[in-house]
Amino acid sequence: MEAEFVQWLRERLPSDARLPLGLGDDAAVLHLGTGGDYVITTDLVCDGIHFQLATTAPELIGRKALAVNLSDLAAMASVPQAAFISLLLPQSADPELVHRLYNGILDLACDYHVAVAGGDTNSWDGRLAINIALVGTVSPRGPLRRGGALVGDAILVTGQLGGSLLEHHLKFEPRVREARRLHEDYALHSGMDLSDGLALDLSRLLTESQVGAEIEVSSIPISPAARRLSETSGRTPLQHALSDGEDFELLVTMAPAEADRLAY
Amino acid sequence: MEAEFVQWLRERLPSDARLPLGLGDDAAVLHLGTGGDYVITTDLVCDGIHFQLATTAPELIGRKALAVNLSDLAAMASVPQAAFISLLLPQSADPELVHRLYNGILDLACDYHVAVAGGDTNSWDGRLAINIALVGTVSPRGPLRRGGALVGDAILVTGQLGGSLLEHHLKFEPRVREARRLHEDYALHSGMDLSDGLALDLSRLLTESQVGAEIEVSSIPISPAARRLSETSGRTPLQHALSDGEDFELLVTMAPAEADRLAY
Repeated sequence: MEAEFVQWLRERLPSDARLPLGLGDDAAVLHLGTGGDYVITTDLVCDGIHFQLATTAPELIGRKALAVNLSDLAAMASVPQAAFISLLLPQSADPELVHRLYNGILDLACDYHVAVAGGDTNSWDGRLAINIALVGTVSPRGPLRRGGALVGDAILVTGQLGGSLLEHHLKFEPRVREARRLHEDYALHSGMDLSDGLALDLSRLLTESQVGAEIEVSSIPISPAARRLSETSGRTPLQHALSDGEDFELLVTMAPAEADRLAY
Repeated sequence: MEAEFVQWLRERLPSDARLPLGLGDDAAVLHLGTGGDYVITTDLVCDGIHFQLATTAPELIGRKALAVNLSDLAAMASVPQAAFISLLLPQSADPELVHRLYNGILDLACDYHVAVAGGDTNSWDGRLAINIALVGTVSPRGPLRRGGALVGDAILVTGQLGGSLLEHHLKFEPRVREARRLHEDYALHSGMDLSDGLALDLSRLLTESQVGAEIEVSSIPISPAARRLSETSGRTPLQHALSDGEDFELLVTMAPAEADRLAY
């Protein structure tokens, strides 16, 4: 959500003991006082924005709809458990579309041991949209959050950035396992997933943490896809790495000594 | 979902200890072994099918998007707790649309003590759609289900049926409190909410329960709206009461002696 809208919503919402973290992270922690907390996210993808139905295998579209939600739970180092699938299907679509979308969802759900628990399927005269709500459990160390970065922290990402549009956005592996491993083995101060580009997403993490940051341009990992894209886009590989969306890598911060321990 | 598709999905899904009820009810019960179970539903409403954006106050559209989900939790006699809102907004819409939709959602959420816990907001060149995922807790007597109706049961509904299109579908009060009261004070054998008309929804309940039913036509409560609609529709009030969608009343079955106790 855009910052202004989140601010408006925060002002409208009373504080609630069921939401110990409030808004502002990649997913919500739900505390219902009946046992362990749950981590829940919801994400909608639609034709023309997040994928092109006319030119994309429906299995990859279904896969992406779940993968972006898995990435949101990875951002909190949560363990994904159950998915709820809402489909808005074009009436004109091939009757096989729903099965092919679901096959893409179910294969990825299987990889991450996620139960497909429910859903809603509608047809209309508009274009395809898919919403998935994903429920996870909290990691033993608690949720990883955007708001904990400290002055002096090192900033790390889990992979190369930019050019996702060429292919990565349909085939990326959500960093669920990496997030758990990092969160269990290292003292992370803050984290999120990169969905709108390093420049914008880092600024969000910094805002939540109330700190600033300096980045050495030479240390940004630029993907081969960003370089390939720059050959025709009129923009530099660095610009792609900083501002292309849908990297779906993790962005984390930790003390420099901890980062050294990780790197060697 | 249509019966064929649910059947296809059931065959594709492995049984899973996290989903003690499987598919087939109005909401899923999620058992993560960390404490109390959760009841979760997801429902999507869209322009041209569930409402007409051009002629409807956005507050009522937002209200309906949440109300249909509350009705699904009422169907399980669950206590609603937290909502996750996904919006797909037309790019051409008034910038106030998002606030007016949310105002409708937030007012109803307040009435039912539901926390708005998260969401996703997108704009596209298509029409308005809203998905809400709603999380609740299980009633002390366990979830009310479709599959428990017994031979000899009485069949009851919580209100008059038919003609919802005239106004009721935008203003109905989801039967959350009635469901809890009924489920706590009476030995219900089965229940669901009426979203596709008594004839179709009762057949679904019967299928899950593996029983049949006889209905005395004279005992079906026909709404004034069904009578009003029949004046111009060419269909009888009874036909409207049996097959109009979006009544959002509860349908329950119980032993005849229990039904007598309820009625007097």
